Amino acid sequence: MPMPQQPERSERPERQRADARRNYARILAVAEQEVAAHGADASLEKIARTVGVGSATVRRHFPTRRALLEAVAQERITALGARAHDLADHDDSRAALLEWLGEVVEYCVCARGLAAALSYDFAETDPVHENSCAADLEAAAAPLLDRAVRDGRASPDATPADLIALAVGIALATAGHPDPAARAHRLFQLTVAGISPQR
Amino acid sequence: MPMPQQPERSERPERQRADARRNYARILAVAEQEVAAHGADASLEKIARTVGVGSATVRRHFPTRRALLEAVAQERITALGARAHDLADHDDSRAALLEWLGEVVEYCVCARGLAAALSYDFAETDPVHENSCAADLEAAAAPLLDRAVRDGRASPDATPADLIALAVGIALATAGHPDPAARAHRLFQLTVAGISPQR
Repeated sequence: MPMPQQPERSERPERQRADARRNYARILAVAEQEVAAHGADASLEKIARTVGVGSATVRRHFPTRRALLEAVAQERITALGARAHDLADHDDSRAALLEWLGEVVEYCVCARGLAAALSYDFAETDPVHENSCAADLEAAAAPLLDRAVRDGRASPDATPADLIALAVGIALATAGHPDPAARAHRLFQLTVAGISPQR
Repeated sequence: MPMPQQPERSERPERQRADARRNYARILAVAEQEVAAHGADASLEKIARTVGVGSATVRRHFPTRRALLEAVAQERITALGARAHDLADHDDSRAALLEWLGEVVEYCVCARGLAAALSYDFAETDPVHENSCAADLEAAAAPLLDRAVRDGRASPDATPADLIALAVGIALATAGHPDPAARAHRLFQLTVAGISPQR
């Protein structure tokens, strides 16, 4: 029994999925630019207009502003996770931890939406909604911190969540500074050394 | 020459001034509640409605949102300035500095609008507008920091502006946390001791 229609029938949903993927990629690319320019205030409507799709299409992919910020942040978070993995067997555990954490601060400063995405969850009233960005970064930080603490090179009182929160705070406090990267680097160095360590 | 009208004539502007002062005090009191509840998102329109005056009256006293946040913050800033003065001759210069800075962090956490007012200036494009709140706090911090540095009890690399920026960053990073005061205190202690001080 010939089924001449079958290839075409199965192609159609594939083409739809391919269209959806392309749409998603285009929306994400424009969203990245919007978030880079306007941080957490990125406008979903403007993204839709720039891509040339309806707001409903954007909202189907990103139901909330937070979902958008997280999607934009996710690529960077994944890169930071890979970087932490690379640094895990660095000879100097303190240097590895601080190198990585300094990169987190830099990313948070450059990617304005990232700090917002990371601090956003606190503002969420839904306790079951996890902040996957923060959780991913904390998971990446944990082995680097553990090793430095074992070597007596980092504070045993610090948790991965503390490190990420401090990085986020530094990024937020310097966000609109004329030279945020330099200002953030300075504050990070102070936080590493301590503003008044006990002797 | 009798001048029976004079007392009444001079009373009228006085009464107007007294009315304006009362209005200002009422607006400021409502503004404090609004800023406590909504931080930097406090609505000038809602303040006007609650006080029972027109938006124009509120805007005459506070032309910008920032002016409102700064006015609300000013009372606390003045109290922190007085506190720094009291602590200036404390026996232990390190304890004095950290006691005061801890209170700055606490104030920033409790008074949501304060951290916003302090970080706001960076977002201002007008370079001549000074951030009087931050400047006042930095001026209050300076003698405490100087003395602790002279005693070798605080980092000689830290400036008053660094200390205030770190306090603001900690407040911003913990703003929506379920227990922001405890979380901020923890991050402050880590910042004081250093997350990885050089030995």
